[in-house]
Amino acid sequence: MAGMLCPVARVYCRCTDSREGDVAQQARAVATRNAIVEAAAAEFIEHGFAGASIADIAQRAGATKGAMYFHFRSKDLLAQAVIDRQRELNDELQDKFASSDLSALAILVSMVHALGDLMRDDVVALAAMRLAVEVPEGGDDRGPTYDAWAAPTSAVISHAIAQGDVRDTIDPEVLSRFLVAAFTGVQTASFASTRLEDLMDRLHEMWTVLLPGIVAPGREHVIPDILQRA
Amino acid sequence: MAGMLCPVARVYCRCTDSREGDVAQQARAVATRNAIVEAAAAEFIEHGFAGASIADIAQRAGATKGAMYFHFRSKDLLAQAVIDRQRELNDELQDKFASSDLSALAILVSMVHALGDLMRDDVVALAAMRLAVEVPEGGDDRGPTYDAWAAPTSAVISHAIAQGDVRDTIDPEVLSRFLVAAFTGVQTASFASTRLEDLMDRLHEMWTVLLPGIVAPGREHVIPDILQRA
Repeated sequence: MAGMLCPVARVYCRCTDSREGDVAQQARAVATRNAIVEAAAAEFIEHGFAGASIADIAQRAGATKGAMYFHFRSKDLLAQAVIDRQRELNDELQDKFASSDLSALAILVSMVHALGDLMRDDVVALAAMRLAVEVPEGGDDRGPTYDAWAAPTSAVISHAIAQGDVRDTIDPEVLSRFLVAAFTGVQTASFASTRLEDLMDRLHEMWTVLLPGIVAPGREHVIPDILQRA
Repeated sequence: MAGMLCPVARVYCRCTDSREGDVAQQARAVATRNAIVEAAAAEFIEHGFAGASIADIAQRAGATKGAMYFHFRSKDLLAQAVIDRQRELNDELQDKFASSDLSALAILVSMVHALGDLMRDDVVALAAMRLAVEVPEGGDDRGPTYDAWAAPTSAVISHAIAQGDVRDTIDPEVLSRFLVAAFTGVQTASFASTRLEDLMDRLHEMWTVLLPGIVAPGREHVIPDILQRA
């Protein structure tokens, strides 16, 4: 039987296939599934997708072979679970900022900062980013990952242009595509150099370089306040 | 016996250990070595470092097991050979621009363009970049790769500030560190989305975003000419 939408984990999984199906058992299955996803994230970070082994992931999660097979039949499904979880975290971040009364430019800079914090604090978020920059195997296409990040960024930039803080000569799609790529590069270089220890300093540097070219003429006075959020 | 400085390949290799040591044999050894490095580059791009196998690399290069062992005793040495070759190509690029009579800002933008071309044309240059963004295994630290790219960039930026084209409020080290990271991110996103097909367009977009914030006040008229090089 194919996976069903799990009422607890809010993802397609097989925990509700069980005939017993009681709440306690479902909760245990979800806990096991989460532990496996976190273990997979840690192994992907340490060894890359190609270098990670399902056996090592199971051992790290303290899961039996049966439990592994029950939740994830392949390494691809584990990678997908990591990427899905990162998208959820991303959506939560966006929801948080959607209700804020900051200017759109302040939201843009604060969101990048929050994303940097997330990479440093959450093993699954970091693993999703590592998977996005890794060499994809064969026909696997991770391009959509970048598009998924760029679309909401573009909306915030349009808003910042409408508010007069960002130059109206800027194409929101061009800037958002570049910001996603630049963030990817900054965290990749920071990971290689310092295992993300200097990530927040590097992101601050990024905004120091970018803001003078982004902020609309006559609005330069907002830059110091915006940089404090970076 | 450890490797010696090969008079043909200008790298440490074992081809000159041979007692026969005649020029024809050395040339054959260098050709084999180059074929192996190119095959390794292609395998690293397709499968990543962890996913690449020495047996597949030998088969792709048409090299015997003995030849593989003679030139490269480990996958790490193959990765190092790829990275060394990329540094040579990089140095050649820099030498080419050092003797040009372009402004330093035009050189900066043209060099990034040339590096983009190199990634698209040369399998070894592309593989070196893919290795730089991949998840390093264990204690392996690829941070120095980024520093090696940033140092010469910083010198060109200092020159452009002295020439009055770039704002004197910019710290050359900050901008060069960011440029290296941004280039890394742009080519990573372009590789994931289109296998580098849109790389040159993305780099042009990068400069469209960056130049207004980099160019010194009063020098904005140079931007259109500079963008033509991007």
